[in-house]
Amino acid sequence: MIITIRNTANSEHRAQLMALLCRITGSQRPITTTQMRGREVVAIDSALVDPEAHSLLRSLNAVEQIHSLNTPYQLASRAFQPENTSITIGATNACTPVIIGGPHADPVIMAGPCAVENREQLITTAQAVKRAGAHVLRGGAFKPRTSPYQFQGLGVEGLHLLAEAREITGLPVITEVMEPGMVETVAQHADVLQIGTRNAQNFPLLLAAGRNSKQLPVLLKRGLSSTLSEWLLAAEYILAAGNPNVILCERGIRSYDPQTRNVLDLTCVPLLQELTHLPIVVDPSHSTGRRELVPIMSRASIAAQAQGLIIEVHPDPDTALCDGKQSITPEQLTKIIRETSLIANMIREEISVA
Amino acid sequence: MIITIRNTANSEHRAQLMALLCRITGSQRPITTTQMRGREVVAIDSALVDPEAHSLLRSLNAVEQIHSLNTPYQLASRAFQPENTSITIGATNACTPVIIGGPHADPVIMAGPCAVENREQLITTAQAVKRAGAHVLRGGAFKPRTSPYQFQGLGVEGLHLLAEAREITGLPVITEVMEPGMVETVAQHADVLQIGTRNAQNFPLLLAAGRNSKQLPVLLKRGLSSTLSEWLLAAEYILAAGNPNVILCERGIRSYDPQTRNVLDLTCVPLLQELTHLPIVVDPSHSTGRRELVPIMSRASIAAQAQGLIIEVHPDPDTALCDGKQSITPEQLTKIIRETSLIANMIREEISVA
Amino acid sequence: MIITIRNTANSEHRAQLMALLCRITGSQRPITTTQMRGREVVAIDSALVDPEAHSLLRSLNAVEQIHSLNTPYQLASRAFQPENTSITIGATNACTPVIIGGPHADPVIMAGPCAVENREQLITTAQAVKRAGAHVLRGGAFKPRTSPYQFQGLGVEGLHLLAEAREITGLPVITEVMEPGMVETVAQHADVLQIGTRNAQNFPLLLAAGRNSKQLPVLLKRGLSSTLSEWLLAAEYILAAGNPNVILCERGIRSYDPQTRNVLDLTCVPLLQELTHLPIVVDPSHSTGRRELVPIMSRASIAAQAQGLIIEVHPDPDTALCDGKQSITPEQLTKIIRETSLIANMIREEISVA
Amino acid sequence: MIITIRNTANSEHRAQLMALLCRITGSQRPITTTQMRGREVVAIDSALVDPEAHSLLRSLNAVEQIHSLNTPYQLASRAFQPENTSITIGATNACTPVIIGGPHADPVIMAGPCAVENREQLITTAQAVKRAGAHVLRGGAFKPRTSPYQFQGLGVEGLHLLAEAREITGLPVITEVMEPGMVETVAQHADVLQIGTRNAQNFPLLLAAGRNSKQLPVLLKRGLSSTLSEWLLAAEYILAAGNPNVILCERGIRSYDPQTRNVLDLTCVPLLQELTHLPIVVDPSHSTGRRELVPIMSRASIAAQAQGLIIEVHPDPDTALCDGKQSITPEQLTKIIRETSLIANMIREEISVA
Repeated sequence: MIITIRNTANSEHRAQLMALLCRITGSQRPITTTQMRGREVVAIDSALVDPEAHSLLRSLNAVEQIHSLNTPYQLASRAFQPENTSITIGATNACTPVIIGGPHADPVIMAGPCAVENREQLITTAQAVKRAGAHVLRGGAFKPRTSPYQFQGLGVEGLHLLAEAREITGLPVITEVMEPGMVETVAQHADVLQIGTRNAQNFPLLLAAGRNSKQLPVLLKRGLSSTLSEWLLAAEYILAAGNPNVILCERGIRSYDPQTRNVLDLTCVPLLQELTHLPIVVDPSHSTGRRELVPIMSRASIAAQAQGLIIEVHPDPDTALCDGKQSITPEQLTKIIRETSLIANMIREEISVA
Repeated sequence: MIITIRNTANSEHRAQLMALLCRITGSQRPITTTQMRGREVVAIDSALVDPEAHSLLRSLNAVEQIHSLNTPYQLASRAFQPENTSITIGATNACTPVIIGGPHADPVIMAGPCAVENREQLITTAQAVKRAGAHVLRGGAFKPRTSPYQFQGLGVEGLHLLAEAREITGLPVITEVMEPGMVETVAQHADVLQIGTRNAQNFPLLLAAGRNSKQLPVLLKRGLSSTLSEWLLAAEYILAAGNPNVILCERGIRSYDPQTRNVLDLTCVPLLQELTHLPIVVDPSHSTGRRELVPIMSRASIAAQAQGLIIEVHPDPDTALCDGKQSITPEQLTKIIRETSLIANMIREEISVA
Repeated sequence: MIITIRNTANSEHRAQLMALLCRITGSQRPITTTQMRGREVVAIDSALVDPEAHSLLRSLNAVEQIHSLNTPYQLASRAFQPENTSITIGATNACTPVIIGGPHADPVIMAGPCAVENREQLITTAQAVKRAGAHVLRGGAFKPRTSPYQFQGLGVEGLHLLAEAREITGLPVITEVMEPGMVETVAQHADVLQIGTRNAQNFPLLLAAGRNSKQLPVLLKRGLSSTLSEWLLAAEYILAAGNPNVILCERGIRSYDPQTRNVLDLTCVPLLQELTHLPIVVDPSHSTGRRELVPIMSRASIAAQAQGLIIEVHPDPDTALCDGKQSITPEQLTKIIRETSLIANMIREEISVA
Repeated sequence: MIITIRNTANSEHRAQLMALLCRITGSQRPITTTQMRGREVVAIDSALVDPEAHSLLRSLNAVEQIHSLNTPYQLASRAFQPENTSITIGATNACTPVIIGGPHADPVIMAGPCAVENREQLITTAQAVKRAGAHVLRGGAFKPRTSPYQFQGLGVEGLHLLAEAREITGLPVITEVMEPGMVETVAQHADVLQIGTRNAQNFPLLLAAGRNSKQLPVLLKRGLSSTLSEWLLAAEYILAAGNPNVILCERGIRSYDPQTRNVLDLTCVPLLQELTHLPIVVDPSHSTGRRELVPIMSRASIAAQAQGLIIEVHPDPDTALCDGKQSITPEQLTKIIRETSLIANMIREEISVA
């Protein structure tokens, strides 16, 4: 259940509403509102609202409208917001912002190394992906690694290098955050907070990302074996915490075939576009695990109507400290951007014909 | 291990080779040769050949060359045949043949109803998909159904209707065969034998299809949860039985998400193109299960370099006796053919640039 | 919908019923009855029966009772037959029969080599598993192999050896049948027809097994990634074809972990016992793939209330022509039978206490 | 690579070693030692150690022995520690401690409500599970819920109630911790820290649990679709952070069958016992999701040699705030404890016979 709050509601009216919602839901957490569709909204669990509370809610001055949805997710649902969510990446730092989502946006290309390894590697790559036409620089400062003995990233030093790379190239920066206690530190340097597949149901992290003080967009990767419903409910944690800027990222799901351990589920792109208004990008690097497949699956992703791509690029993939096997060169990126742009144009024209 | 047989081998030389192979492998089945790359070849299990037998084989008059491959499949391997297999569909009946595979072939569109229901439904649909630009008519006469109480197809009567539809439209016909004992009956009427996902490891059926007397091409769907290796070994059964004309068909694999029970694994298309020379088509109908997704995933399939599509079309999907939910209209097919053709052209031009 | 036929129905009454059923269902196949609960029954698709036909059916002399079930399977459903199905194995040949299912039956142990390799190997193993306390001899004459180049079994010669082993040991014999055309040949020599995991939805084979002229029991393995509902519907094909003697066999389902590619789903045993009256056995050999795990998972299977086990035993596992890695020795079988019998007794006593 | 540190090493020797290890591995984190097998050990990535560093390491005063293992996990490996790890639960608080792992320990039963709902519910349940024979009280104060709108647990208040329940019953307490920042707070009240399936690869949380100041044991649930290798590497994070007290918990893995969305993988129990020395318990509640199946799968788990069970019990399951469908009554728990104890005894006797 989503409640739209009246523009005219004063602080007393709002306090009244919040007190009633706390009473109804028995929530220990303060209840948070989110700005969506130009209005302030708040979502609660409809199962907790009995019919009497319903009419009580309607009678409050603060309440403009009550939306009852029959999906488990509320704010993420296209039934609530029919138009696409449009998110500006890079609004708060000195860089060239780019918009994802929205009516006629071009595919947004996020590219860069798996991990920030050192100043030279990062700056070189950043300049190369910029030249290739990318819109956002990706790079891991904190790396979730399956083994404690693998390279874990440069940490805060990596964040500083990313900020420097943004200064030099003008590209906004996306980087991963792995724990609630680090959200503000990462938010200080990044333009988009990335939440990785292993943290797709790390609820304290989702809440913290939802509450980041700069309302930076959050790119939420699909869990290793998340259903679409679980994924949208993870997004709902961020939305319900007050942050409407969520980008979904398909990165492959677990499979039984040792030859393709992750299966890129491209059908989820149009399926999600029915279910939610949030933008969806595809990660062809992790989902395929092999650089030869990245250009082809990038084309297929855009043909499936993904609104962007996040791609691992390394100036010298074979020496990369992590994920070299799936990293492409800047030259390959140039070709990918040209091809996906042709496909996106073709789709746009086809749709305008229809 | 693959042995290429010398052009000059006479019947005595060949008998000598076969006798040796039977002795080496202890095979109960007669050993069959296949025509590939313009030569006659025979494959056997390298594990069974000790070094002595090796040199014995080389010394035979019939033996031109011995290829040792380190994949479990042999004849299906691109390591053996680097160039794409090119297959002519519709060569043996009065109709307009179409080539799949080969160097610059356009995507081949196979379309038609899930099941042949009656004369009128079939002929109407056949004429409509022909007008829309399809190259092959699909339609099930024998239907594998999860429940014994569901409609099982019209059987032989359905085959006659398919042959009539070919006569009227000139479209070659693809239809499913479910048991070894029916292969010749189906081969009498069809242009391509289809083997369904539930029979992907029905080895007697694969052998029988491999031995069909007209050497009709066989379209082999991927098993519900086949690995690529299992799938290529299933193809190997057909090849080793003497039929080089195998088309692979990705149709989605089993998933954990009730919202998308089959996951279309498009990455398998470029992966298979590395591993094998056989053509690969995609079935966007079964893999998505919903007609709204068929056009989008058709585009994505061609962008992933699939060499064709097999699509369920029904003049009135909501009244279809089977799979109505995933059947599209002829109008939607027209649009799919236009869009996928644009993408295929774009890819061809990009490749010629590179 | 299941119709129980009156004992007093004469041939005219029965013909009247069958004619009506054919008309209602539009079936091309002759409609078959099955003996269950001491009565003759016939099942049809309730979706095809409109209310008028309903009352028409009730008015027929042949119709005693009509059962409407809200599961997709009918004859397999415990809602139709609350008591366990009890099946006699070895009733038609000269051997010591054993009963599976029924109220207080002991676990039935089926054991023997993966494949019949030669006379000596088979007879030695048969005598050893007999001494160890097994009730049924297993052994493959026709082997479904992933690769066409692997050993495919001795075929009909293997069947003769199995019959000889039965003569010598008195153990009834279970062996696999892979194609409809071979059902009668196999039924001539075997006491139970086995249908393998790759044929779990080979519907022509299921029908042929259901119609085998000796009404031999059929052991139906679960498909590589069958749901319980798909599995029970596969059983329904056999039951609806007139054979009430179906044994279900859990053999592991496909998994994403290369270390345990098949996952033994023991929870399916009590779940199936709620849904169906058919007996359920477990195959700890294929499901684990490693002989060290077979004794432990045999215990766990019986603790989960499986009504039997089917185990691969080889006198010299390391030289086995197939599946040696998962075959145990006769000595290990002796220990398994002792341990599982202790657990089965314990459960029986606990249940009688409760 | 694991290095055993000499007993006689003084602080200077140790500093020398640590400095060298930091240099070799380039680690940003301080390197931590763990007490295992009565010795202080430290593990590092063998891939980072070139042959020269190897001999340099050997020459140090602090180094007693260097173990090279060919598994990705090191400290968790049975190749390093052949004997079972024995863990005392409840050593640091006033309660009746219980040992898990070790040579002849009985199955350890952990039981209690899914969530702590209020004082009365918790104390009643705690007393009931104590009477039934359980050894440890489970109960969630922080609940990871798929939806942000579901009951999220009582938080710190729940921890206080758990401590009170321990005081009253003498049962040590296990409860979940969801974020690194809360580890010390939870450790103040609990006897075992539980890490849930959704946090199975939350590496900052694993590290924090590994460093908890009381060295409380950590129960690490398997991830929704973790391989055994990934699971053991997650355990390795805790071990490498200095905490040798890790208990593994199988709780079902994701499946494709809507009827059994989690598949209890009991085969993993003996498989893990080959690979690791850590104790393994089974959660039959989450893995089956239905209370009717809990007693049967508890028996099967102990027959598969699990060293304990963690079971959801509620005095009135149908009114539970969470997971009522899978909670059993205290009466059922009594029966489970009796039956599993019989099976454990039987196995022990069988093993001593063998």
